[in-house]
Amino acid sequence: MECYLDNSATTKCFENVVEAVIDEMRVNYGNPSSMHLKGLDAEKKIKNATKIIASSLKCQEKEIIYTSGGTEADNMALIGVAKAYKRNGMHIITTMIEHAAILQTAKSLEEEGYEVTYLPVDNRGIVDLKALEEAIREDTILVSVMGVNNEIGTIEPLEEIAGIIKNKNPKTLFHVDAVQAYGKIKLNPKKMGIDLLSVSGHKIHAPKGIGFLYISENVKMKPLINGGGQQRNLRSGTENVCGIVGIGTACEQIFKNFEEDNKRMRELRNYMLNLLSDIEGVSVNGADDEHSAPHIISVSVEKIRAEVLLHSLEEKGVYVSSGSACASNKPAISATLQAIGVKKELLDSTIRFSFCVNTTKEEIDYAISCLKDTLTLLRKYVRR
Amino acid sequence: MECYLDNSATTKCFENVVEAVIDEMRVNYGNPSSMHLKGLDAEKKIKNATKIIASSLKCQEKEIIYTSGGTEADNMALIGVAKAYKRNGMHIITTMIEHAAILQTAKSLEEEGYEVTYLPVDNRGIVDLKALEEAIREDTILVSVMGVNNEIGTIEPLEEIAGIIKNKNPKTLFHVDAVQAYGKIKLNPKKMGIDLLSVSGHKIHAPKGIGFLYISENVKMKPLINGGGQQRNLRSGTENVCGIVGIGTACEQIFKNFEEDNKRMRELRNYMLNLLSDIEGVSVNGADDEHSAPHIISVSVEKIRAEVLLHSLEEKGVYVSSGSACASNKPAISATLQAIGVKKELLDSTIRFSFCVNTTKEEIDYAISCLKDTLTLLRKYVRR
Repeated sequence: MECYLDNSATTKCFENVVEAVIDEMRVNYGNPSSMHLKGLDAEKKIKNATKIIASSLKCQEKEIIYTSGGTEADNMALIGVAKAYKRNGMHIITTMIEHAAILQTAKSLEEEGYEVTYLPVDNRGIVDLKALEEAIREDTILVSVMGVNNEIGTIEPLEEIAGIIKNKNPKTLFHVDAVQAYGKIKLNPKKMGIDLLSVSGHKIHAPKGIGFLYISENVKMKPLINGGGQQRNLRSGTENVCGIVGIGTACEQIFKNFEEDNKRMRELRNYMLNLLSDIEGVSVNGADDEHSAPHIISVSVEKIRAEVLLHSLEEKGVYVSSGSACASNKPAISATLQAIGVKKELLDSTIRFSFCVNTTKEEIDYAISCLKDTLTLLRKYVRR
Repeated sequence: MECYLDNSATTKCFENVVEAVIDEMRVNYGNPSSMHLKGLDAEKKIKNATKIIASSLKCQEKEIIYTSGGTEADNMALIGVAKAYKRNGMHIITTMIEHAAILQTAKSLEEEGYEVTYLPVDNRGIVDLKALEEAIREDTILVSVMGVNNEIGTIEPLEEIAGIIKNKNPKTLFHVDAVQAYGKIKLNPKKMGIDLLSVSGHKIHAPKGIGFLYISENVKMKPLINGGGQQRNLRSGTENVCGIVGIGTACEQIFKNFEEDNKRMRELRNYMLNLLSDIEGVSVNGADDEHSAPHIISVSVEKIRAEVLLHSLEEKGVYVSSGSACASNKPAISATLQAIGVKKELLDSTIRFSFCVNTTKEEIDYAISCLKDTLTLLRKYVRR
């Protein structure tokens, strides 16, 4: 049995996404900037995708800017705002448990003279709201907090965070890295006080290489990528029409049965948590039900190295991740696990199971059975 | 009859490219950064594509960095070098006829305090080599010249340019925007003295949303996009595996019969030029045979607006471009046509025919016949 439980690393394209992408490659291959019919056809396909996406966020179509993925969207949000609002200040706030796309971009801005505050989190991974309030200053131009943590699944209290920001400094913008949140929790940026929001296609069954940044019409932006003036001059370059049609199709599918699908995923998560609680030496990281996304379980296993466990499970067809796995396969100690106070001896013994809308109870049963067998086997060696 | 002669705007994917992309979407959907088998499979596919591409440029595999397209590659080359070599100097040289991806990026660097010299060209579109030599200074960190002009097809004397640069200042780097050149003229960066070279996938029958930057191992680079450390930390973000496999497959196909295919395209070009020379009021812009790429013909038509001509041809199924068409469909006066001294009254009367490896003599005959009919019709109105 093959059991892919690494959906937070990447997902398999929906079949209707594949069909839509094929159609773009074979039939509607025009350049959306071309003035003739082939160009207009491609442009229409983009507009249609944008309409679907804008509707999912209850925003305007012009507020959606396509990027090459979540990483570019995160870079664009931070660098674009930093450059456009430099005169207002050079202070940015983020958290200690962000994805590398935020943390490394923040570091690159520090090199250019910006000041960055990294907020601590509690043992569930929830941002310290008091520290946030204290950190916001007159010259704070941006706060960036992820919607759902990619390693442990914790949902951040975004509305509360927005309230604190706007209360302390109404001029400070709020960016949310929603790569793991979009399609898994309800997001209504305008209602929630979010000014910018990043999404990745390949986490929601669209192809890799496409994503978007929601940019509220009130936000000024300097482009990260300059050129032919596509996408209202905010992101130049011939649009990735296949990718855009793919993410539009995936988005439509994801939000068709959003409530039901997420309820089912959450039930599966609880089912798996229950089975995990029976296994000796296994502990779950992150928040409990209400504060956790429906699709991620972070598990620490005493005395077993994550890499060994991962490869043992892989041999049985169970695919999981050690650490975040979005960080180019070099093993590094997870900043998130450290920030939530995971014991030192477990930092290197943590794996992540992540579901998608198509994950089944049978797969969970199989994965748990494989995990038990593997642990029994591995512990024989450890105990020697 | 449908006759797509806008291949410099974008090309239709090769059928084997489509098949390869489908396979990535349906089967090898893993994240190349994942440590398990699905990740390794995706990584292998990337390595295989890189091998093909590196071989086409006779460079090392580690010198190929994938981007979201030609525009990002151009931005990365200019901004990445500008930031990495700031201590050596803040002077950059380019030409007046570059693509907007270079010109607008140069402008953004000027806003950040860099100085940019824009070299003039002669009436064929060839860079003024004397002006180049004079412009190179001690603090010149980069010269960026396109390989083939996207509007008129002129081939720049890249080796000669490299010689002049290295002779005057061996520290100055040389970047070539090869978006229209790759697959159409021979490119051997190491032999030719080129340090960086940008390529776009969708101009060579791969999907939109993928491209790459050749970066000589001797060049230092600051990344444009920060994050998980993919691609040797030079370009973070989960790799666009579909796009990479697509561009690798397209590249293999393009270089299989490179000489023959380009000879045939050049013959078609000469054939069309000959037919065009018989039409009254029509003049061809750019260089003659040896200095022109095999796939582009820029034509000015007296007293007829390009947009009117384009739409009239479109009605007959002939797709061409007015101006460069990579610049988001807003009609603007072409800097290239101005720089080569096209008469003012013809600037707005210029269209581009651009071929691909699959263009046929029948299509050219049909296009010419449609052009003649259209001109006869349109001129009736003009003469009234």
